[in-house]
Amino acid sequence: MIENKAPGKDVTNDDLENKFPLVSKKNENVKLPINIAGIEFGGSTIPIMAGPNTVESREMIIKTAISVKKSGAHILRGGAFKPLTFPYRSDKYFELRDEGLRYLEDAKNETGLPIITEVMEVEKVEAVAEVADILQIGTRNMQNFPLISAAAKTMKPIMIKRHFGCSIRDWLGAAEYGLIENNTKIILCERGVSVPHTHRSSSRFLLDLQAIPATKELTNLPVASDPSHATFWAPWVPAMTLASIASGADSIMLEVHPDPRNAAVDPLQPLNFTEFDELMKKIVKVAKALNKNI
Amino acid sequence: MIENKAPGKDVTNDDLENKFPLVSKKNENVKLPINIAGIEFGGSTIPIMAGPNTVESREMIIKTAISVKKSGAHILRGGAFKPLTFPYRSDKYFELRDEGLRYLEDAKNETGLPIITEVMEVEKVEAVAEVADILQIGTRNMQNFPLISAAAKTMKPIMIKRHFGCSIRDWLGAAEYGLIENNTKIILCERGVSVPHTHRSSSRFLLDLQAIPATKELTNLPVASDPSHATFWAPWVPAMTLASIASGADSIMLEVHPDPRNAAVDPLQPLNFTEFDELMKKIVKVAKALNKNI
Amino acid sequence: MIENKAPGKDVTNDDLENKFPLVSKKNENVKLPINIAGIEFGGSTIPIMAGPNTVESREMIIKTAISVKKSGAHILRGGAFKPLTFPYRSDKYFELRDEGLRYLEDAKNETGLPIITEVMEVEKVEAVAEVADILQIGTRNMQNFPLISAAAKTMKPIMIKRHFGCSIRDWLGAAEYGLIENNTKIILCERGVSVPHTHRSSSRFLLDLQAIPATKELTNLPVASDPSHATFWAPWVPAMTLASIASGADSIMLEVHPDPRNAAVDPLQPLNFTEFDELMKKIVKVAKALNKNI
Amino acid sequence: MIENKAPGKDVTNDDLENKFPLVSKKNENVKLPINIAGIEFGGSTIPIMAGPNTVESREMIIKTAISVKKSGAHILRGGAFKPLTFPYRSDKYFELRDEGLRYLEDAKNETGLPIITEVMEVEKVEAVAEVADILQIGTRNMQNFPLISAAAKTMKPIMIKRHFGCSIRDWLGAAEYGLIENNTKIILCERGVSVPHTHRSSSRFLLDLQAIPATKELTNLPVASDPSHATFWAPWVPAMTLASIASGADSIMLEVHPDPRNAAVDPLQPLNFTEFDELMKKIVKVAKALNKNI
Repeated sequence: MIENKAPGKDVTNDDLENKFPLVSKKNENVKLPINIAGIEFGGSTIPIMAGPNTVESREMIIKTAISVKKSGAHILRGGAFKPLTFPYRSDKYFELRDEGLRYLEDAKNETGLPIITEVMEVEKVEAVAEVADILQIGTRNMQNFPLISAAAKTMKPIMIKRHFGCSIRDWLGAAEYGLIENNTKIILCERGVSVPHTHRSSSRFLLDLQAIPATKELTNLPVASDPSHATFWAPWVPAMTLASIASGADSIMLEVHPDPRNAAVDPLQPLNFTEFDELMKKIVKVAKALNKNI
Repeated sequence: MIENKAPGKDVTNDDLENKFPLVSKKNENVKLPINIAGIEFGGSTIPIMAGPNTVESREMIIKTAISVKKSGAHILRGGAFKPLTFPYRSDKYFELRDEGLRYLEDAKNETGLPIITEVMEVEKVEAVAEVADILQIGTRNMQNFPLISAAAKTMKPIMIKRHFGCSIRDWLGAAEYGLIENNTKIILCERGVSVPHTHRSSSRFLLDLQAIPATKELTNLPVASDPSHATFWAPWVPAMTLASIASGADSIMLEVHPDPRNAAVDPLQPLNFTEFDELMKKIVKVAKALNKNI
Repeated sequence: MIENKAPGKDVTNDDLENKFPLVSKKNENVKLPINIAGIEFGGSTIPIMAGPNTVESREMIIKTAISVKKSGAHILRGGAFKPLTFPYRSDKYFELRDEGLRYLEDAKNETGLPIITEVMEVEKVEAVAEVADILQIGTRNMQNFPLISAAAKTMKPIMIKRHFGCSIRDWLGAAEYGLIENNTKIILCERGVSVPHTHRSSSRFLLDLQAIPATKELTNLPVASDPSHATFWAPWVPAMTLASIASGADSIMLEVHPDPRNAAVDPLQPLNFTEFDELMKKIVKVAKALNKNI
Repeated sequence: MIENKAPGKDVTNDDLENKFPLVSKKNENVKLPINIAGIEFGGSTIPIMAGPNTVESREMIIKTAISVKKSGAHILRGGAFKPLTFPYRSDKYFELRDEGLRYLEDAKNETGLPIITEVMEVEKVEAVAEVADILQIGTRNMQNFPLISAAAKTMKPIMIKRHFGCSIRDWLGAAEYGLIENNTKIILCERGVSVPHTHRSSSRFLLDLQAIPATKELTNLPVASDPSHATFWAPWVPAMTLASIASGADSIMLEVHPDPRNAAVDPLQPLNFTEFDELMKKIVKVAKALNKNI
């Protein structure tokens, strides 16, 4: 760990470029490629994380895991814990919680795919870390610093999604809360920012791809992109996935569901198995054009 | 408690107007005026919450409490726990934590002013609730639902600051997480939203006063305004305070410091004692013009 | 005219505060109060501009002029030329153009109220200036510099509405295009900015009242506020009008229509005659509390 | 020309998808590929428009034309008329106006490259159209409808840059003002929108690549992308150019200057000749991966 030359005060944009918080480009202890869950991030490969928004059943998550693996995905995503804007759940719109964690474990045992899943509560960090290979901090918790500290202390890799209303400086500050616990396995993930003009009534966010080169100018941490949540609309996902890769994203997270129309949450955004498989072929071509692999 | 007719799914804008989450205008169990810490919110009086950003010392907080009380403030604000974008503190930029809570208690004993102070960690909720009359959920934690639930369960009044990047629907969803715990003493507080065009390099937010009538159209909960954090610039605070009152705000939160230039944090935004006293006189006049008191 | 010390380059925010474009606070040739169309702006009175979005008929504009004058308005507003996002007009949604100008003139002759009306085309500047006492540059044309120059050269007062996506610097730059023609009778008018989170499906803008003190910090030009276009929703207009006055606005523009529900354009935003009359009474009270008159 | 089924009123988002303004996807008279200035837009080739922000001298524009042509560009860009936020010019920061048009013509004669250049004034439309193969409507004039009408009436192809604060609907409405003049040779060009969080002090906009699939979902007009103006920062231009192509952009506009550091305007954003040449090679590779050519 380098000598932490962070200023004894909040870190400004200027400090990010000229001084030494741990997240800064100048911290040579953070260097790509970085091995996360047995997979190289920031090297010649672009790891693909795919799976459903929510683990809906044991059968569903295993079926999805098998399919996305076959198409070439490296990591299985799926939510066991799921924040919603309002505190209501239903038969249709639920979270399986600990039961969901077990099903993720089963899918991992079945396919060998490492797991990324969200953790929302400090008291659940330990339970999630037993199953997950990467702990995801969701957009709403990007500045929930006790949660980030607790997750980082498990020494598991963590992925911090950018809040839809937060700046890059805010985002790097969140990563610093992990780095200061000596956990350097931190992935940043862009997932869309709020903008004045949404393009359709179903779309609320804009995937900020300019943030990819901008963030990589400031830090050595790998930067992923999640086109599914940003677009909220499956027909735009392929274009925005390929654009993410072309803009330099180190990894892609995609929502894939066996039957999108009947998804428990956000049915407009997941790809089905065929669409994902076709997209993977295009991803491979674009990655190759950039001297990368999948 | 009314029968909760919230849909068994996430609540849309349309549901907010036409169905019955607890936060909805149609919930007659939430009705203004509401007595919070012995003070009426949403009645004919507009409670003023004043004090420093951060409790810097015992002497400083007591001195400020005496001064703002003399000028007519109803509630003392001051932070013992203080989130920062990066995890660094210094001699200059610190948080007193439990020690700060004790000083707030001393200031309360000295002046009789009720206390509002921020709580950031679930495990500190109990300690903060012993001292605070109102628990403040800060902007960064607006969607930290476990924290809101824990705070609400103390049955102390809570004040939820709007996240600078969140919609009114997001904000009302956060309040719902408190209401569902049967705690109806919830204040909403607007504190500035991120906008494309800040007006000066030191200003990052825009006080969204249109949110005051917009929010009061949807819910019976009282809505406060915090011009100090929004403007980040003391010279604009008086205008935006009076505008908050004229727009229908039920309460005002203001940053007041004995010596702003030497404040531990954000030295550009607090009013000094004289400025606060003069502003209180103008507040009284504008409130009277609207048939309200201070 | 002062020596123009503007830099021989585009003007930065820093230049606005420290150098001398004509729009700068440091230009002592621009000084409030300023007499515009026989009415003092920026003095002890707050001129009220009221009337319909569009001149729909001779009878309608005269009837409205008589009513708003009786309620205390100082200036009649009404559009003869009306930009729309798409180039379509109908029986319901039209512009009367030159005919509308004649009706405005009739309303002026009938009531003595000065006229403010929009000009959109360079070749119509002369015709509009024959009737109008104040030429309005609409939000879409804020950076249509040939139009501003042409309008300024008539030496009639002009009012420049802020573009919903432009910064204060952009806005002041537009005013500079008028000032450089030696026309110092320029009013700036805030009318709502685009923001990520609209409050209802019918609302698209947020009235940026923080821009009032921010702009007055940089320039001596008077700053008006138009709550009708910003809120797009009549029920919020009274709160945002009073808030505009409390934030320091030098003038208010309001949409008033004899029969809002049947207005040719934007039927949700105008006040009817009774609502306007009631609001005027409140305006007077709040203005008095701030030592101003109406 | 199809029967114009546009509603006799302003066109809503819903109308864009379900009714028939001329700009709508359903207008089969607008169909890609479209031949503009002898070059196919929206076919298998992605035309590249390159050149300096401003024509600084005869020698400079000819030199740049020769160089970008050699690297594979299809069209030469360069401004003879140049709007600035404030009305000041200097030796360093000037516009050559009619003289600049002549130099553009010389560069065209020298290289055979078609010319795209901005027109800002109705009275200059004719002069610009004599030289330009494509008339550019700049971001500030996107809703200057008399200018768009005048440009469209020349029957020259026009390119409409999206205003940094305007929605896709606003943008399509602007195109409709051209289409209604029976001019179907209209290119839309995304060039960055204003967002709350700029990534560095020199950056003001965010390239909205999500607008590419979103706009192409609504209209058959070709959509270009201008990464130079959006990023305002040359080091991000290659990533955002490749991302533009991957997101489906039909054309790319790039700023190229013989000596960026000494550029008359915006010296941080142009590529130099070598950087442009290298980027062209990457563009070709990514285009091929998407079954397109350059």
